[in-house]
Amino acid sequence: MNLRFDKLDGLVPAIVQDHKTRQVLMLAFMDEAAWQTTLSSGKAAFYSRSRQKSWIKGEQSGNFQIVKEIHVDCDEDTVLLLVEQVGGAACHEGFPSCFYRIYKDGELQITQERVFDPAQVYQKK
Amino acid sequence: MNLRFDKLDGLVPAIVQDHKTRQVLMLAFMDEAAWQTTLSSGKAAFYSRSRQKSWIKGEQSGNFQIVKEIHVDCDEDTVLLLVEQVGGAACHEGFPSCFYRIYKDGELQITQERVFDPAQVYQKK
Repeated sequence: MNLRFDKLDGLVPAIVQDHKTRQVLMLAFMDEAAWQTTLSSGKAAFYSRSRQKSWIKGEQSGNFQIVKEIHVDCDEDTVLLLVEQVGGAACHEGFPSCFYRIYKDGELQITQERVFDPAQVYQKK
Repeated sequence: MNLRFDKLDGLVPAIVQDHKTRQVLMLAFMDEAAWQTTLSSGKAAFYSRSRQKSWIKGEQSGNFQIVKEIHVDCDEDTVLLLVEQVGGAACHEGFPSCFYRIYKDGELQITQERVFDPAQVYQKK
């Protein structure tokens, strides 16, 4: 199996889904280093386009994603991680899922409750 | 709400999930035209990078995706569609989901049953 990192400038989209509730938690990108880190550590790792480096999700907040299953799509250019979300929140805004808003008639409505206060978890260094 | 088409060369990743079973069906990309078509038609539309044009999913196979909910992520650069999958199969390979294989020890194992035969649905023109 060869993941197609070549189709998106060295990156592959990774969907993260809660392995029990099946809630979609987030989407991020992996470069090859992040993919290998995910496999070796058992924790989801991604590539940050803004910081231009790979990172293990949760390394700052403690909200790691323990990988239970990895699925690969038909084109081998996207992965789906089924995870246990430590802390119950994947989003840096403190919500369980990054998709905490529903789109209706041009507006976004929040549909989830905050699990943590981002200002406390991500303190200025 | 302004979707961030600027972060990925005019495209936004769109995750498609079955609205009842919560199975993740596929990931594709939308350009702004595909996004507008999705909103106006109520059917999922995407941008094909290989064919360089937008298309309505199911226009050839009949397996449309009827959009039930649209969620937008924290960064407004990814959307999550909850859909009713007509025909019970999202994947052009005939499986319910494009993520029909699980990755284990460097190999891919098929975990789903085929719903249709691609050779019959996508006949040569």
